[in-house]
Amino acid sequence: MNKITVQTLKGFRDFLPVQARKRQYVVNILKNVFESFGFEPLETPALEYEEILLGKYGEEGDKLMYRFTDNGDRRVALRYDQTVPLARVVAQYQNEITLPFKRYQVQPVWRAENTQKGRFREFLQCDIDTVGLDSSYADAEIIAIIVKSFNQLGFKDFKVLVNDRENLRFKLDGIELSPDQNILAIRAVDKLKKIGKEGVIKELTEKGFDTTRAEQILQTVETTAPTPRLKDIFSALEELGVPKENYEFSPTLARGLDYYTGIILEVEVEGYSVGSLGGGGRYDKLIGMFAGKDIPAVGFAFGFDRIIEAMEELNLFPENLAVTQVLVTVFSMELGEKSVQTALSLRSAGINTEMWLYADTKLEKQLKYADQKGIPNVVIIGPEEVESNKVVLKNLAHRTQDTVTLDELIAKLAS
Amino acid sequence: MNKITVQTLKGFRDFLPVQARKRQYVVNILKNVFESFGFEPLETPALEYEEILLGKYGEEGDKLMYRFTDNGDRRVALRYDQTVPLARVVAQYQNEITLPFKRYQVQPVWRAENTQKGRFREFLQCDIDTVGLDSSYADAEIIAIIVKSFNQLGFKDFKVLVNDRENLRFKLDGIELSPDQNILAIRAVDKLKKIGKEGVIKELTEKGFDTTRAEQILQTVETTAPTPRLKDIFSALEELGVPKENYEFSPTLARGLDYYTGIILEVEVEGYSVGSLGGGGRYDKLIGMFAGKDIPAVGFAFGFDRIIEAMEELNLFPENLAVTQVLVTVFSMELGEKSVQTALSLRSAGINTEMWLYADTKLEKQLKYADQKGIPNVVIIGPEEVESNKVVLKNLAHRTQDTVTLDELIAKLAS
Repeated sequence: MNKITVQTLKGFRDFLPVQARKRQYVVNILKNVFESFGFEPLETPALEYEEILLGKYGEEGDKLMYRFTDNGDRRVALRYDQTVPLARVVAQYQNEITLPFKRYQVQPVWRAENTQKGRFREFLQCDIDTVGLDSSYADAEIIAIIVKSFNQLGFKDFKVLVNDRENLRFKLDGIELSPDQNILAIRAVDKLKKIGKEGVIKELTEKGFDTTRAEQILQTVETTAPTPRLKDIFSALEELGVPKENYEFSPTLARGLDYYTGIILEVEVEGYSVGSLGGGGRYDKLIGMFAGKDIPAVGFAFGFDRIIEAMEELNLFPENLAVTQVLVTVFSMELGEKSVQTALSLRSAGINTEMWLYADTKLEKQLKYADQKGIPNVVIIGPEEVESNKVVLKNLAHRTQDTVTLDELIAKLAS
Repeated sequence: MNKITVQTLKGFRDFLPVQARKRQYVVNILKNVFESFGFEPLETPALEYEEILLGKYGEEGDKLMYRFTDNGDRRVALRYDQTVPLARVVAQYQNEITLPFKRYQVQPVWRAENTQKGRFREFLQCDIDTVGLDSSYADAEIIAIIVKSFNQLGFKDFKVLVNDRENLRFKLDGIELSPDQNILAIRAVDKLKKIGKEGVIKELTEKGFDTTRAEQILQTVETTAPTPRLKDIFSALEELGVPKENYEFSPTLARGLDYYTGIILEVEVEGYSVGSLGGGGRYDKLIGMFAGKDIPAVGFAFGFDRIIEAMEELNLFPENLAVTQVLVTVFSMELGEKSVQTALSLRSAGINTEMWLYADTKLEKQLKYADQKGIPNVVIIGPEEVESNKVVLKNLAHRTQDTVTLDELIAKLAS
């Protein structure tokens, strides 16, 4: 074999068990919350015909997309997000899908970005969308799901920031901006938190607004009140029992993307400054792109990698996420069967149990193995234990040791 | 927008909720079984450097692999299986991974195969492997996991066929075949079930064996006895309480792949004739390919798509796999809040609950929606129910209807 460098591609990651467990933990919580609101899973292929994806994410998107010619000379592209595939699905299966279509989707996407902290070329997207329904209840439900999700993940001080794109349709001296000018204004305002008022005014003047108009835009943003739609949404949220401290009208929230048509959403967590942990909103002109008609939709994308990072920083993962709860050691060849029986009983009781698989290994080595793997408990069955029909349970984290019966062992490990 | 054909690539599939639920159901059962034996999750990237994968799957593999040049002029390839990435991981993280490394991996792989029934270009692989341990216990554990998995999935008449490659190291007139000749013989014997004895002899003679030798090979296969290793494995299986009807010594099992060095395994299900539902074995020379030394390993790959297909044919999926258990309808704008309260109570009780999100829709339409979506239960709260502080529970599948209190409703739906 030629000398091969054993490495992964820049921006691509392996997840060894410790990290993979954390990811599963978060995915499971999110899926459970989504399903508790009646959202159902959808999966789409990693590869699509290039023409399905091309031109849907702007010039930048086309550039960052992984595209190539396959063995059958088809131009294909790797999934870039889950929204365009959703639009394709809605058009392709019009007769099978009942609207409103409430789906969640948790799959990797690929973008050839410049890598940096928290930005990867392969990353998991977790999306929920309600398709085919324009109602303030649908909007409110998305917010309720976001709040429940972050609650269940263990976040305490978090807020869903809410605004309405309506509030960002700027009128200066009574005259609406052109759509092009308006999106320039939105993009500038979107950076308010990052670059401050002066920064926004600077950007606006650079984009061709005069200083008076730039200041007017900023003032509009800062003095605006909730739209009637937002008021409806907030009252639905009260009905839904969503805690008031977890959402907030944020007139300066803009979100840079062009396609939003109603509410816009972002999640902010106290103590995590890297940025928003997810974003979304209503986008009534996008999902119908392949169906050839407008189909209303509202949705949210959870920032999976940032959520993991924030949970690590804020220490929100359970102390022990080990999949395996206990290692049953083997004292000696002769006593091996006793260990097997114990392992079988533990598994029957629903306890994830690893059994040592060598016939003769020093106990020390077995304990060290459990420790290195993060298995919290170890069971030892030596001659004395066989005699007294008991086992020794060692908890490696708490450094405790008990001699217990099998029933007591199961009770302790199941608790 | 140009006229775009709304379609998926040949061999690639969308999974709408009904199908996606089935897949999740199977994946969850498999993961739970793997974890109950102390196996832990591993994830590797979809894209690897081409040189990591190239040449590892034979000429055919190189041809079927999705390979291209990325934006940074790197030659890259899409994951073709999960074994070569596992070998890379074992070499790349030698200091972080404690052996034995028991990992499971459930990710899609891509192969540009000719599509046919049950063969796709994107499909999910579900692998378990114990790396770094050569012991009959490790072999037996893999078989125990397979049996428990198929049991948990609901299969009744299934068998793990077990053989030892040792039994396929052919000696004719006391002289071993050369390795090249031997693999030709194995490949022919592997087709015994498909093409019968005569077919095997025909293939052997075509490959250059004379008729006498071809018959000797076949006879060897049919008269061979379990090797000492197999006897150890079978006795370990008895210790592990694995039902005898679920595994069987199968001297004619060959498995075509070159890399097996010990036991070989396949799963056969009564009543499903398309083929084996998974395969595996011991392969002690493969995982060390990047580490530069032999690392023993034993593993099994579950044939995910065939498992789904067999479960559909044998009717093994639960009657109702619906994620959503109940739709709470909205009788009228005025009574809407009552519906919201009921939905909240159901969700608090852990019941997946969809709430109707329009303010005013005919009840009929709401019932039809639930029916089309496969939501088994519907709750109706009209003026009478509000008066009596009860709700109507309709079960759409069983066509029953009850007027119950909220507590009764929760009890009925939770059961």
